[in-house]
Amino acid sequence: MSNLTHNIPEKTIERLSEYRRTLLSCHKQGVTHIFSHVLAGMHGITAVQVRRDLMLIGFSSDTKKGYDVKVLIEFINGILDSESVMNVAVIGMGHLGQAITKYFNGKGLKLRIVCAFDVDPAKVDSTIDDIPCYHMERFEEVVSAMDISIAVISSPTRVAPTLVVPIINAGIKGVLNFTSAPLNFPQGIVAENYDITTILEKVAYFVKESDENNDK
Amino acid sequence: MSNLTHNIPEKTIERLSEYRRTLLSCHKQGVTHIFSHVLAGMHGITAVQVRRDLMLIGFSSDTKKGYDVKVLIEFINGILDSESVMNVAVIGMGHLGQAITKYFNGKGLKLRIVCAFDVDPAKVDSTIDDIPCYHMERFEEVVSAMDISIAVISSPTRVAPTLVVPIINAGIKGVLNFTSAPLNFPQGIVAENYDITTILEKVAYFVKESDENNDK
Repeated sequence: MSNLTHNIPEKTIERLSEYRRTLLSCHKQGVTHIFSHVLAGMHGITAVQVRRDLMLIGFSSDTKKGYDVKVLIEFINGILDSESVMNVAVIGMGHLGQAITKYFNGKGLKLRIVCAFDVDPAKVDSTIDDIPCYHMERFEEVVSAMDISIAVISSPTRVAPTLVVPIINAGIKGVLNFTSAPLNFPQGIVAENYDITTILEKVAYFVKESDENNDK
Repeated sequence: MSNLTHNIPEKTIERLSEYRRTLLSCHKQGVTHIFSHVLAGMHGITAVQVRRDLMLIGFSSDTKKGYDVKVLIEFINGILDSESVMNVAVIGMGHLGQAITKYFNGKGLKLRIVCAFDVDPAKVDSTIDDIPCYHMERFEEVVSAMDISIAVISSPTRVAPTLVVPIINAGIKGVLNFTSAPLNFPQGIVAENYDITTILEKVAYFVKESDENNDK
């Protein structure tokens, strides 16, 4: 990921996103204050890590009662969210594309999946989960018309490399690539390659290591 | 992730998994040797990083011709894979569960999705993408009978916390949780919480930062 323009580490950004989801769920359940060690415990990390992350973004807590849940949510919003909603397009409306769309719909985030692209005639020009699906040929035109800044790639892996040029030409600023083909984009486009196989192989590796250790 | 038992960093393990997929694809195309900077370029990282990762696992290259692709694949296999195939179960056969299953089927990995679990009567006791789907009530029994060591959670988020006890009781050793509910497991179970929202919010954050930087 190209990240020359900021001071907050990537991992802290990830955790802020995770803290916020937990805090929103606490808030919904009527919890008004939370201690760092409680928040940490819910994420399987140390209280020191939570305090360090919040210190990095300049948030300090009332230590007697813990963090004010609502104030902390607002504070994280100020860090993570842009002022206006950011529009997202999903490329490839197979199972993964549909899972992602369903997942985001109605979550009230500052990110909104506004349309999808596919080449399957059964999907093109139809509406899937309330999201219009267009032919990939129309990518540039639709991205411009709908003011889309982020593309999620959930196409078959073999298709992924053919998407790089249309994405650049359309002026997309951020890419989240779920296929197995790592994609490189020019500077100025934030790109994250995320292959599910990698994480599953990582879990398998540590299971194997843990087994071998127990056998000793 | 609990990783007290090994010496190779998590990030290196992730990259080894990624290198291997690229190398397999090169091998398929008849490429016999590859230089570190070429492999690095395909992953958008530096040659130094590639060499450091391979040094960590004790692999050295013929620098004149680059790495022998086939030998390096075998070497990474030796690090990542267990001797026997590891069986995986998917909990929740919605779009995400089906995407993951389809993705893995027939990839010839040392990880094999052997069954799925759901509570939807339309799915239970049927076969989805050649994978039998059982009722979640039978989790312990089936995990034991099929010798399953890894569980992938792709259920609705609200269901995820109820899966912790069955997973512990069934003797599962590794968990990959895709829901928004972070789950904690006792020591001895390798668990990775992976929420798609987090990664998308991270990309959005860096797009925003990059925009603000350009506006200055």
